[in-house]
Parts: sequence; C-alpha cells; structure tokens
Amino acid sequence: MCEIGYLAQVRRLRPVIHCITNYVTANDVANLILAAGASPIMADGIREVEDIEAISQGLVLNLGTLKETAIDSMLLAGKTAAALGHPVVLDPVGVGASSFRRETALRILGEVPCAVIRGNASEIRALALGTAYSCGVDADGREALTNENRQQTIALMQELSRKTGATIVMTGAMDVVADENQVCLVKNGHPMMGQITGSGCMLDGILAAFLAAGSVNGPAETYRRQEGRNDGVLTAASLRFRQVVYAVAAHGICGELAYEKTAQAGQGAGSFRVHMIDSMSVLTDKEIRRGMKIEV
Amino acid sequence: MCEIGYLAQVRRLRPVIHCITNYVTANDVANLILAAGASPIMADGIREVEDIEAISQGLVLNLGTLKETAIDSMLLAGKTAAALGHPVVLDPVGVGASSFRRETALRILGEVPCAVIRGNASEIRALALGTAYSCGVDADGREALTNENRQQTIALMQELSRKTGATIVMTGAMDVVADENQVCLVKNGHPMMGQITGSGCMLDGILAAFLAAGSVNGPAETYRRQEGRNDGVLTAASLRFRQVVYAVAAHGICGELAYEKTAQAGQGAGSFRVHMIDSMSVLTDKEIRRGMKIEV
Amino acid sequence: MCEIGYLAQVRRLRPVIHCITNYVTANDVANLILAAGASPIMADGIREVEDIEAISQGLVLNLGTLKETAIDSMLLAGKTAAALGHPVVLDPVGVGASSFRRETALRILGEVPCAVIRGNASEIRALALGTAYSCGVDADGREALTNENRQQTIALMQELSRKTGATIVMTGAMDVVADENQVCLVKNGHPMMGQITGSGCMLDGILAAFLAAGSVNGPAETYRRQEGRNDGVLTAASLRFRQVVYAVAAHGICGELAYEKTAQAGQGAGSFRVHMIDSMSVLTDKEIRRGMKIEV
Repeated sequence: MCEIGYLAQVRRLRPVIHCITNYVTANDVANLILAAGASPIMADGIREVEDIEAISQGLVLNLGTLKETAIDSMLLAGKTAAALGHPVVLDPVGVGASSFRRETALRILGEVPCAVIRGNASEIRALALGTAYSCGVDADGREALTNENRQQTIALMQELSRKTGATIVMTGAMDVVADENQVCLVKNGHPMMGQITGSGCMLDGILAAFLAAGSVNGPAETYRRQEGRNDGVLTAASLRFRQVVYAVAAHGICGELAYEKTAQAGQGAGSFRVHMIDSMSVLTDKEIRRGMKIEV
Repeated sequence: MCEIGYLAQVRRLRPVIHCITNYVTANDVANLILAAGASPIMADGIREVEDIEAISQGLVLNLGTLKETAIDSMLLAGKTAAALGHPVVLDPVGVGASSFRRETALRILGEVPCAVIRGNASEIRALALGTAYSCGVDADGREALTNENRQQTIALMQELSRKTGATIVMTGAMDVVADENQVCLVKNGHPMMGQITGSGCMLDGILAAFLAAGSVNGPAETYRRQEGRNDGVLTAASLRFRQVVYAVAAHGICGELAYEKTAQAGQGAGSFRVHMIDSMSVLTDKEIRRGMKIEV
Repeated sequence: MCEIGYLAQVRRLRPVIHCITNYVTANDVANLILAAGASPIMADGIREVEDIEAISQGLVLNLGTLKETAIDSMLLAGKTAAALGHPVVLDPVGVGASSFRRETALRILGEVPCAVIRGNASEIRALALGTAYSCGVDADGREALTNENRQQTIALMQELSRKTGATIVMTGAMDVVADENQVCLVKNGHPMMGQITGSGCMLDGILAAFLAAGSVNGPAETYRRQEGRNDGVLTAASLRFRQVVYAVAAHGICGELAYEKTAQAGQGAGSFRVHMIDSMSVLTDKEIRRGMKIEV
C-alpha cells in the first residue's frame, strides 16, 4: 500500500514540529521526534505561538496536564497552522475524565481544522459521544475494540471524521485508522506500550512529523515528483490516510522491536521505553514495509 | 508482619492515582505508578481537579516546582479527596528552602487531612519544626538519622503525626515510618537512590497506589474479606501503617535490585533509574516479603 | 592547561544549582547535575526565587518553553544571584524562533550580569545579531562553524562577550569558548549528542555546577589555597574561562564515552541518553585531563 519512503522523507526534510503538550511526556515526545529525524520545539507561550508555528511544518495539540492559560495558545497556534497549511494532530488525552477537557477538545475541533485525532478507545468514544467516563488517561479495558463492537466502533469513528474532517486514529491492542471513506486495522505494536506513559503522545509527534514531511502541498509532493512517482488520482485525504497508517505501523513496529529486546534481556518497563526510542532512531522504511501488518 | 499481597491488589484493582506534582520528575512518577500496576493521571488545572479526583482513588500533592496557581488546585483536590475518602500523600519537597513552600505545606496540612507525609530528613525536620534550612531538595547530610539523634527524630515524627493525623515517612540511608502509636525502621534501599532525581517523588506515587488499592473502606477490604482473612482488631490507622511500611520496603527493594544490575554491568546513575522502573514492573509480593528488612 | 580537579571540587562541595528551565529537559538536567555531584533545585515561582537563590551557589536561566510568568522570576533570581556573587548561565534556547524569546533574552542580558551564555551556532548568531531565523531549537546546519566562517564567528562571539561580560559557549560539531581576551576550540563530543533533546540544557547545568564549585571568591578558592596551589596572576575572568573550557570538555567526553557504549551494543538514541548520564556519574578529573582535546 505504501511504497513511498516516508521515514526517509522525514530524515531528509527534517520538519520542525511545534508541540503544545503535557509536561509528563514532553521529553519522550521530543526524543521520539528527534529519533525519527524531525526537529521538535515545545512552545506554549501565547506571545510566541504564532512565531513558532510560522517556522514549523506541523503542530501537535495534546490535552494532557491542560492549563487554562494553554487553551488560547492552542487555538492561536492551531489557527496559524491552518492558515499556513500545516497538519494539526489533536490528542484528547483523558477527554472523558473532566468537563474541562471535553469542552476544550470540542472548542479546538470547532475552531481548528485537525488533520488527525488520536486517542485510545475510551478517549475516542468519549469524544465522539460527548460522554464522561470513569477511567483516567489509560483506556478502560471494557471499551477496547472487540469483534462484537467493531462495526459500531468504526461507524463512530467515521461519523467523527465526517464531523471534523480529521483522520481518526484509535490506538489499543489493535489500532484502527478511519476517515469518511476508508478504514484500516493496524495490527502492529505490543501490549507493553500500554505499560509506559507517553506511548500515545509519542505517536502524536510521529504522526505530525510524517504528515509534515509528506504534506501534499508541501515539500514531500515535490520530492515525490522528483522521484518520478505517480499515484494517479490520489487525493489529499487519501494520501493523508496512507501516511497516517504508515506512521501508526512504524510506531507499532518500534514497540515490537522494543519488546523483543526487553524480553531477550529479561528487562522491564523502564528498558522498554529506552528500546522504543532506540528502535525509532535506527528504523528504516524497508523494515516498516516488511513489518507492517494492516488489514483494509 | 504483612501477609497480604498488596502489590497484587494494586495490579488487580488498578487504582487511578491523581498527581499534582512537579514537572521535573512527573514522567518517572507516572512510569513507576504504571510499573506497579496502577494508572497515573497528572492534572492540576483548577477547573478540572474536582472531576479528576472524582474518578481517581488516591491523590499525591508534591511541592516541587511549586507555582502560585497550583496551590488552589492542591487545596481543592485535597478537600475533594478527603470528602471521597481517598488517601492523600503530601510530599513537602524542599520545604525548608523557601517561606513560600513552608507556608504552602502548612496551609495544606491545615485544610487537607493527609494519610501520609513523606520527605527526607531535612524536609521532615523543617516541616515539624517550622524552620528554614540551607540545603535544597536533597537532604543535608548533617541531619541524617543517626544512633545519637534517633530517639529525638522519632519523637519529632510522632509529634508531627499527632498534629496532622498522617503517617510520617522519613526516607534516607535508613527509612523511618512513624505514627502516633508505632515506629518502624525500613532498612531496604541503596544510597544510589539519592544520586537520581525523583526517587522520593516516585515513592509518593507508590504510597498512594498501595493505599488506594488497600483502602480499609475501599475495594481492598472487600478483597480481604473475599480471601477470608481476618486481622482481628486491626484499626484503620494500623492497617495504613502496615501498608505504608510495605510500600516503602517495596520501593527500597527496587533500589537494591536496580543497584545490583547497575553494579554488575558497570553502569552509572542513568542506568540505575531505568533499572528502578524495570524492577518495579516485574516485582512480586513474594519478593517483597522475602526482601523486607524492617525493625519495629 | 587545567591541573585543578574541578570535578572533584563539585563532588566535594556539592553546590546547590538553582534552575529556571524548560519542562522538556528538566529531568535530564537534574540528573546530570546530580551525576556530576552537585544538587539541583528547579524553582520558578516568583514568591520563592529569592529564597531559593539564597540557599544556592549557581543559577541556570534557560528560555526553552518560556512562559510570560517566568520572566519576572528569571529577572529576580538573576539579580539575586548577581548580588550574592553566584555565577549565572543563560541559555537562549530558540532565541531566533520568536520575538518573545529575543526580547526576553535581551532583557535578561540588560538586567542580569551573566557568567556564561551557551547556545548552538544559530542561537549565538541570532543573539549576537538580534536576528530571527527559520530553524527551531536545533541548529541550522548552514550556520555551523566552518573554516571559512571561523574568524567571523569568533569575532561575533567576542563582541557578544564584550557587550555582556559573559564567556560565550557555542556548541556544535566543534565547541567554541570565547571571551574578550581568549578563544578556545573544544574538539570533544559526538554528533549523537544532537540526536537527543537536552544535550545543551544538560551542559548549562554542568557549567553552573563547575563555576559554582570553582568560584574565585567562593569555596573553591579556599580549596585551592588549602592545596597550596598558586596560579600566579590568574584573574577572575581567566579562571572562569578555564573552568568553562574544562566543563565543556567534560560534557563532550561524556558524549564520546556514551557513543562508544551505544555503538558497541548496537543501540540507538534512547540508550545514548542513558549512557550520557552514566558516563558523567562515573567520570573522573583524570579522564577529563586525559581526554580533553582543546586548541587555544
């Protein structure tokens, strides 16, 4: 499905990724963005988000450790990104855990055109349905994707995509990527990714980096033309969908490689996190293409 | 002393631990809480701390990198926790280093009933005596527990427990746990825990997770009844004391295991931190019971 | 050039280093300061920075993730440090990326006498020339030090030193240290240091720790006298220059050692970061003296 070397593009173009994110996992997000070959900049001061977005190529808005003062910065950065054609990745961390996060997520979606919304099963359900839940930032196991709820889950994601224009990514034991027209299951990854904080936040950064480097109207298109590639009638949304699937698979493959190393050495969650970053820093497009397990 | 499998309870019940903590060690705290099997959520926005506490089972209030705006959030979260019967762990980081931290710590203690107060020797002394000191967030070696000052130190801790109702944990080369009626020395741990940032903050999270999972009026009691256990006249305070000792020992044992791995591989402080998290993620109650070195 | 055991002094005197820094790399900075043997305290609340500075021996002001509210804290901490004779290290992170950071950096330089200004090639150029740039917090490769621009770069750094009174450190493939009267190239380090976030921020902490421990009018002078050393007409600025070169080399050597371990084990960027902290925690002055590659 994806013959283009998106990871090589990230390393070649080294897009600057502006992140307004939480202080818990900011370091991991920055390190994974660097490991993928892009350049992270964390900046949430209201007086500088326009300037910062102007020198960036992609934006992550992550609601973890949300502060009142960050909301205006997120909205301003998001609108600036939209005006500049930068992809915006929204992560509604813990969106069902407080009305403050729900209202903020909905306000962002109302004012900022997002390219991707990424969350776990509980977060995507809560966002799509506007409901509260009783878990925190980790998913409630009872809301995980199953054979029984698959059709209904996908319908929910596609409805959310229709309303927001975003490609929806629901991560879990199996990841689901969906937009209005397409659905794809990504069967990469390992349960140990749920045993460290920041797996999802790190994927936010990777998604923004891949989309920024592969932006249809941006440098990636030029690159693709240079390479003489032609994807025919590939639309912007359809190209974005492919890039998102590719990024989700790449992240999942890092989790698999990290688990292998962790298990071989008889280590635990602390080492797993280190191996995740190691794996991304030495990953290649060839390994991604070989390791991708997707089901359209 | 502790036949109950508290760690297994944490993993079984997976309590959500609400942390209002510093940005320096938040990642380590979240990862160690996850490694123990609980689910951390860092949230300090005044508009959401009530909602977040309502879906949590325990609360950590940590004064590192204290901001003016966080104080109201801490007080509101603390009162909400108290109303809901959740254990509150207060960590008066660097309490003697500024009058701002001292006043804040005293204000929290005046308005929020805390289950545990945890600090190093300098912090516990400064809090008990209301004095300033010349060290920062690391203890002043001259204030460490010695044979000479042991009786006076314990008296100070018990007086602080009487005033606050909390179980007091003073960590150092030897850890001391004390409440009004009991004192216990925990001789687990390794000096290398003082060579990384966040050892103490991580213990805060572990304490909250163990207390939340083992709460007398909460799910743990039910669990204990299901198991047919009967501790006789065990009071709430006495049960809490046992759980605190157990959590402190578990944390210390992780430090010992981490040191072993670090020394064997000829590594340093960076690896030690990784091994700490690894050790917690694979620790068992059996290992804790076998490794506990306590002196009542 | 540097026979004095500055690292041993840090470990002996254990200076408290007050850091007002970003939330992305605060954990790494704290851990590297601890690994060097000093004691970090991160504190940016306006109500406590004077108290905190009073119990510290050195100050780091780092503009990453700059917030409006932190500026007054930085200025107050900086003025307090100056009044107390503490070395102040300024890191103008991403100074060319927003007018907010540029104005703040200039304001700090106008009001606080800094001992050291440390940045990458893009940051030092932007600060010296007052210009904006199109990269983020990572240097723009086109602005790196080359044989062609070396004389002009050094002239720029010396002019910045004249204006500010600070020793200027420009880190990159080759590090340059310059003040009004002297220039030194430090050829230690490894490119992998640029593949993790926080290499530069960590050096800020190390610089402050070495300067605090080796302060001319502080404990280090006493120590040197005790040892019967006599550096003749060594002035304060000249001693500071030597200490800065030594600290930059020490940090670079940690990068080299970390790279060796990473390469030997076939690891990546995540492990490299762990090895950096490991290396500092076991480093000795003997290794620094043996490994220093400097060109005056």
